[in-house]
Amino acid sequence: MKIINTKDTNFNEEFENIQARAKSDIKGVSSIVMNIIDEIVTDGNEALKRHISKFDKWEVGSDENLLISLDDMKKAYENIDDNLKKSLHMAYDRIKAYHEKQLPKSWLDFEENGTILGQKVTAVDRAGLYIPGGKAAYPSSLLMNAIPAIVAGVKEIVVCTPTPNNEVNELLLAACYLCKVSKVYKVGGASAIAAMAYGTKTIPKVDVITGPGNIFVATAKKLVFGEVNIDMIAGPSEIGILADETAKPHYLAIDLLSQAEHDEMASSIMITTCDEVATLTSKEVEEYLKNLSREEIARKSIEERGAIIVASSMEEAIKLMNEIAPEHLEVMTKNPFELLPYIKHAGAIFLGENTPEPIGDYIAGPNHTLPTGSTAKFYSPLNVENFMKKSSIISFSKNAINELGEACAILADTEGLTAHAKSVRVRLEK
Amino acid sequence: MKIINTKDTNFNEEFENIQARAKSDIKGVSSIVMNIIDEIVTDGNEALKRHISKFDKWEVGSDENLLISLDDMKKAYENIDDNLKKSLHMAYDRIKAYHEKQLPKSWLDFEENGTILGQKVTAVDRAGLYIPGGKAAYPSSLLMNAIPAIVAGVKEIVVCTPTPNNEVNELLLAACYLCKVSKVYKVGGASAIAAMAYGTKTIPKVDVITGPGNIFVATAKKLVFGEVNIDMIAGPSEIGILADETAKPHYLAIDLLSQAEHDEMASSIMITTCDEVATLTSKEVEEYLKNLSREEIARKSIEERGAIIVASSMEEAIKLMNEIAPEHLEVMTKNPFELLPYIKHAGAIFLGENTPEPIGDYIAGPNHTLPTGSTAKFYSPLNVENFMKKSSIISFSKNAINELGEACAILADTEGLTAHAKSVRVRLEK
Repeated sequence: MKIINTKDTNFNEEFENIQARAKSDIKGVSSIVMNIIDEIVTDGNEALKRHISKFDKWEVGSDENLLISLDDMKKAYENIDDNLKKSLHMAYDRIKAYHEKQLPKSWLDFEENGTILGQKVTAVDRAGLYIPGGKAAYPSSLLMNAIPAIVAGVKEIVVCTPTPNNEVNELLLAACYLCKVSKVYKVGGASAIAAMAYGTKTIPKVDVITGPGNIFVATAKKLVFGEVNIDMIAGPSEIGILADETAKPHYLAIDLLSQAEHDEMASSIMITTCDEVATLTSKEVEEYLKNLSREEIARKSIEERGAIIVASSMEEAIKLMNEIAPEHLEVMTKNPFELLPYIKHAGAIFLGENTPEPIGDYIAGPNHTLPTGSTAKFYSPLNVENFMKKSSIISFSKNAINELGEACAILADTEGLTAHAKSVRVRLEK
Repeated sequence: MKIINTKDTNFNEEFENIQARAKSDIKGVSSIVMNIIDEIVTDGNEALKRHISKFDKWEVGSDENLLISLDDMKKAYENIDDNLKKSLHMAYDRIKAYHEKQLPKSWLDFEENGTILGQKVTAVDRAGLYIPGGKAAYPSSLLMNAIPAIVAGVKEIVVCTPTPNNEVNELLLAACYLCKVSKVYKVGGASAIAAMAYGTKTIPKVDVITGPGNIFVATAKKLVFGEVNIDMIAGPSEIGILADETAKPHYLAIDLLSQAEHDEMASSIMITTCDEVATLTSKEVEEYLKNLSREEIARKSIEERGAIIVASSMEEAIKLMNEIAPEHLEVMTKNPFELLPYIKHAGAIFLGENTPEPIGDYIAGPNHTLPTGSTAKFYSPLNVENFMKKSSIISFSKNAINELGEACAILADTEGLTAHAKSVRVRLEK
């Protein structure tokens, strides 16, 4: 694995390459996706069936075949082995407990002149979850998207997932049953996003669409943003690791690889203050690679998008990491909590040697849907508020309008909005 | 003003027309805006200067002329009359106090096995505010966009505003001085959004762009979403009013008009349970219209997009209003707070006869940047969290990984991610 040093003469250039890591080329597929969306808006279910025939290679026939039956979900759930069932339940419970702590509360505040101001928080009526299908169907994605919606109090949760050759991933169905998702549609790609954004005869229009997907799905989500809300536009997965001289190279190496095995486009970056840790980790990566089931993918990712940076101080290391703003950040140092105040930009922060990133993918509790490609500078992890929205509350008493009304009318006059001013002044005591 | 009744045979059709109120035709201008963005990305400041010459009709010359000096802002502030200054300060203080109540806190939570989970909340590094310019420059827009960013703790706040014929709105400058915004650029339209999203030699790349604007600005915001975060995509302004037999028609009428005077595309909808209130309000609207400074705009808005609906019960009225999901909702009934639990979708809710909507535009405290066109079903008012983001925190003890690790590894195995499983298992005690 490539090792670079912040003192290298070409470091700035190398670091720019790291920062310019895989961004989804949304522009390239925009016109294709726009056409797909238009087809769904115009032809609804019939367009869905055409797209399924073309991309997933099966013929839907009548509308109801788009829907997976609750019975199938129940069977799938009952068929999974006990250990897995126990693990799924443990994940479910822990994810639910964490997201319950995020729940915002409505509030009211009272002023002495009789003014009442506040904020009412409510769930959206309907959420649409997109879950990739086929071989890459991850039941954990279903848990991570459904549970925040459940905790938010969303009454109707709809799932779309592609079923290539009409084969459904049984584990995904089991997870849907566990989460009590009652409507799962066999629809994938940009078509699914368009169907949930605009509605068809079978698939209801939702208010919010969340969930991972390929470049077509990401582009469709961006294009329907405004018609519905979306969580974020995500790209390939990433890990950043801050390591000092106390970090164990064989932990660091497998953690870097756990990200690299996702995708050839995934990026795994470690910044360490210790030359020896850098060298040993690089060797360990090579060792582990030989025995990985997804060796080819991981190797390509490590070679093309991985790097170990040796920094001259932890301060410098953190500064660089804040610029990268990684999706996942492991802090593998002696006193990781002491560094927490200085970490500004990261999707999820994993502290200490017993906290490998995959713990956060499945079982810790926080969401694994995280901002990628430096967007942790402005996006948050998927959370209950993605499925909620707020309304401001304002109530003025007679006293309050008498006290504050004229100042309001003066501002309205200044902006030339005389009906605004008048609507206040008609209420003022003469 | 048109009065319709929910019992009318064509009511459903009429109501559909109301719901299909002015949506911004973003698609129509997308390709123009895409070209503008491409020009800014390619040519930076030079493209900005070309666009300013074309649209705002003045020649910038050297780069520094894009910036308004702090001195000019200070002068503008010192020149405004005392009453207005007092009103501006009152607005500033109240808006600040309200938004301080919204501030989310970071938190940590501890489990008995040594697990620590939490959420760290941080401000974005840099925010870009777009404020329309020229005659329609509203200092209140500046306050409403800058104050949440200030309260969130954003270190660098940048403002872009167009200055047609190089004439700057003095009140806007005064408001910028009051808010201590140090960088105000004379750049408007889609070019300004592109400049803040991608950065130019003079204008820094920001993390979040907020603020109102025309269809070109709205489209540009949608197109740069993902490169930066944005608040929402807003359309024409709207008011919905729920009124019972106790509501005063001359209040209702001027409140409807205060919305109508904004824009011919604005929509003003009242739903009342009382025939007489409907008839009298319609007459009062006609009376007020004759003396409005913006009569022509308001009349067109009321005639083409206004309606009074007579409902057979308050329950029905609320149900219809939730479907409309108005930007502003006035509840002009005897006991407005009793209806609050049933109101699901509205940007801001104004309760009781002393609370006209314009109070919320200027002085009450809550933000006046609100979701329009039914998007209150999923968007929130502009708030401090638009300028903040969260990072999840996860720290496992040796005990915790021993207790939960195997369940995690089982789930990873199930998904075929063996490096994920391995990164957990290497840490488990044998």
